[in-house]
Amino acid sequence: MSEIACLLGFDVTEPAELVLQIAVPSPLSETLSVEAVELPGRQHYLRAEPGKLRVEYRATVGPQPAPGPVTKLERIVALRPSRYCPSDRLAGFAARQFGWAGDPATTVRAITDYVHDHLYYTVGSSGPTTDAIDTLLSGAGVCRDYAHLVATLCRSLDIPARVAAVYAPGLSPMDFHLVVETALDGEWRVWDATRLAPRQSLIRIATGRDAADTALATTISGVLTMPEMMVTAVADGNLPIDDHVALVSLGGNVT
Amino acid sequence: MSEIACLLGFDVTEPAELVLQIAVPSPLSETLSVEAVELPGRQHYLRAEPGKLRVEYRATVGPQPAPGPVTKLERIVALRPSRYCPSDRLAGFAARQFGWAGDPATTVRAITDYVHDHLYYTVGSSGPTTDAIDTLLSGAGVCRDYAHLVATLCRSLDIPARVAAVYAPGLSPMDFHLVVETALDGEWRVWDATRLAPRQSLIRIATGRDAADTALATTISGVLTMPEMMVTAVADGNLPIDDHVALVSLGGNVT
Amino acid sequence: MSEIACLLGFDVTEPAELVLQIAVPSPLSETLSVEAVELPGRQHYLRAEPGKLRVEYRATVGPQPAPGPVTKLERIVALRPSRYCPSDRLAGFAARQFGWAGDPATTVRAITDYVHDHLYYTVGSSGPTTDAIDTLLSGAGVCRDYAHLVATLCRSLDIPARVAAVYAPGLSPMDFHLVVETALDGEWRVWDATRLAPRQSLIRIATGRDAADTALATTISGVLTMPEMMVTAVADGNLPIDDHVALVSLGGNVT
Amino acid sequence: MSEIACLLGFDVTEPAELVLQIAVPSPLSETLSVEAVELPGRQHYLRAEPGKLRVEYRATVGPQPAPGPVTKLERIVALRPSRYCPSDRLAGFAARQFGWAGDPATTVRAITDYVHDHLYYTVGSSGPTTDAIDTLLSGAGVCRDYAHLVATLCRSLDIPARVAAVYAPGLSPMDFHLVVETALDGEWRVWDATRLAPRQSLIRIATGRDAADTALATTISGVLTMPEMMVTAVADGNLPIDDHVALVSLGGNVT
Repeated sequence: MSEIACLLGFDVTEPAELVLQIAVPSPLSETLSVEAVELPGRQHYLRAEPGKLRVEYRATVGPQPAPGPVTKLERIVALRPSRYCPSDRLAGFAARQFGWAGDPATTVRAITDYVHDHLYYTVGSSGPTTDAIDTLLSGAGVCRDYAHLVATLCRSLDIPARVAAVYAPGLSPMDFHLVVETALDGEWRVWDATRLAPRQSLIRIATGRDAADTALATTISGVLTMPEMMVTAVADGNLPIDDHVALVSLGGNVT
Repeated sequence: MSEIACLLGFDVTEPAELVLQIAVPSPLSETLSVEAVELPGRQHYLRAEPGKLRVEYRATVGPQPAPGPVTKLERIVALRPSRYCPSDRLAGFAARQFGWAGDPATTVRAITDYVHDHLYYTVGSSGPTTDAIDTLLSGAGVCRDYAHLVATLCRSLDIPARVAAVYAPGLSPMDFHLVVETALDGEWRVWDATRLAPRQSLIRIATGRDAADTALATTISGVLTMPEMMVTAVADGNLPIDDHVALVSLGGNVT
Repeated sequence: MSEIACLLGFDVTEPAELVLQIAVPSPLSETLSVEAVELPGRQHYLRAEPGKLRVEYRATVGPQPAPGPVTKLERIVALRPSRYCPSDRLAGFAARQFGWAGDPATTVRAITDYVHDHLYYTVGSSGPTTDAIDTLLSGAGVCRDYAHLVATLCRSLDIPARVAAVYAPGLSPMDFHLVVETALDGEWRVWDATRLAPRQSLIRIATGRDAADTALATTISGVLTMPEMMVTAVADGNLPIDDHVALVSLGGNVT
Repeated sequence: MSEIACLLGFDVTEPAELVLQIAVPSPLSETLSVEAVELPGRQHYLRAEPGKLRVEYRATVGPQPAPGPVTKLERIVALRPSRYCPSDRLAGFAARQFGWAGDPATTVRAITDYVHDHLYYTVGSSGPTTDAIDTLLSGAGVCRDYAHLVATLCRSLDIPARVAAVYAPGLSPMDFHLVVETALDGEWRVWDATRLAPRQSLIRIATGRDAADTALATTISGVLTMPEMMVTAVADGNLPIDDHVALVSLGGNVT
């Protein structure tokens, strides 16, 4: 069992519509401090009047459901280039750098090794418009950038890849986290090139093509800023050890 | 009533998996010359052995169903930047160039006017990796590029926009066509900055974020090329006149 | 007559080689607080040991020499694309937006008007890798970005353009300034789309293709930062009025 | 001794001004089939009336003069980013990939090995706006692209690098060629990551920051195309063997 929570503090300067992606799919129990319309994918839609808006979400979470087998449609979508994962532009680089690896699982491991070794984890090194090419060139990034670069290189080599926004017990400093899921032998397997938290304990929030799909807060209309954010995620007992090589699904089952 | 058809000729060099987006949602009647698994969204999945592959699709189509009212989820997705519509990078340009327009419908008209006037329709001026920024800078493109630039500028100004791949009676030279739908007052309205075919007669194939979602043929695995392609789309009677200013939905109802 | 001065404070963390471009071509008198080798173009080369390095430059400057007539070689170089002025990528946009203007002087005025009107002067909106395309898209910049965008659009339309780093009496807040010179009827004419200082009083430091050529301090080897910078530039008497439309050369002669 | 020649056939559609960079610095003898004004750097400036323009250049060339020792000014300019060599954007990638190499000569060798191994030499894979980042991502290019990528990676690591347009006896298929010169221990050393011709026999035409500076023909005004081009370069006797590892200067002296 895990306890997760987040606190978001907004300054709303013009009446705004807002979508939050902070809730988890099947909590044992949960509370959300604001009234909101729930949309598919556990997104929460709310309207905010000018002033301070404070959102608090808390949940108790049991064992994560394993993602189902990869469907044909999921596979197709996870091969497409996306805003922050322009896999169509990197195909040559990916083929030259990882073409030797052969089977998909070995290729994904080679990619996550490369991304882990070639990037510095540097807070502030990237921004909201940074894509996987910028990250490859600059050699630095945060979890979002690591995930985008891994997903992009996988798609460049015809390995379906998507991102998952997660609560990550053990992450330090604690924050929202973004990881990659690749379709291997019909199963979604999770990868984290930052290697900053064990994959077995990750708790899914949202899944998408890249960070454009999984943003924790999206402004639909109006104007606001989010000067305050706090996250916690604590798992019962000791955290598992993760070699970041084994095939693990986000639900935690190791093969 | 309209008669539409397409013929795709592939050269398969390695056993391939392929997804086609050529079928229309609710034909009066249709034939597809190959066996395929139908996926949601009327996509067709097939496996192809090395050699020639010839796909022929024919359908008779009645009046187009109007797209339903815009849902919150559609609106949210249609505001996100995507691979060929990097609206997050163009926000300043869009605000400077079209910020004066005020209400969303006037803004969209100003954008389609601008794109119509500032691009040359030039076959061969763009390629599969061309995005809306490339198009704005080069001042040339084909329907795909016109649609991407319009959708991008709309999203930059918080107007939800998506693309629709269509059969387009009246288009000359005849080809598959790509247009834009924007959410205005809760309805999906269609725009075509090329102004090469009347919007009232368009027949929807697929809807998506950009051309990555609506490609007529996507290779999932294996290797193939498509040296041959033919499209026809013929509407009964005279084609309607389109001023490309009125609010029209893809189903044809004019406001 | 004008009095100009600057103070640069460096933190040198590894033995460094450094080139300064802060001196003016023909001062009436000047002092530089450090020993340096003078290179062509009044660049100063120096070696710095770890620790604090403080550089002070002061000069009294008389009337600026008019730039000589444009040579063929200058014209050729000023038509080439450069790092921050990728004119080859913007040719279509420039032709669509300014092709109506006809003669070169009218074209340059249309370009400077456009850049003035379409950018917000925003400190912190750009960085060292920002090029003219980024600036056009973001709609914001500082003097460096205004100059790059003007020079790029001119070159795209076959009008030779270069940048000049200058001391700018009247600029507020005071800083080093970057402006554009275009070749018109055989003369170098100066333009400042920020319109923040009169062109007649500008005092040239260095001329180049873009900011890569005119950086006030370039590290050749070693590691250092420049946490401190101060500039002053004061002209005798009242500053002239500048309509930013007349043909003015950097030496101040108005046509 | 070498015999070199080129033939350029232009179609001039509007009266044009043109600059050619096809002549070598100190030929034993030479002929140019058109009247032209010679500019510094052995550039030839000419005006062309509408119609066909045919330019033929022939020269007999003796031993190449060794480039002089690297001056401070050359070093400074050769460290700057340029249009096709955006070294400021690649600094992180270069440091991660080649930072281990240590001394500059080893670093340059590692870079040329990498570029040789990671690119396919593919005619038609690049165009006039392709820069070194595009080349790295696409994994393919021609001599221009190999040279740009090598020069960019060197500059990213503070190793001064410039390009040289050359006649290249032994190149197959014969064409104009572009190579890199880096400043190592005060000498300009030449590198060719395509490894398609021995460096000892190269004959310099022009030197510059990138292909923008060394284009064989640049249109200053007017409109023309160059549908025809032929190059020959033949050296006396057997061509030398080149391991593409030794320190060689463009004049041919091996260290």
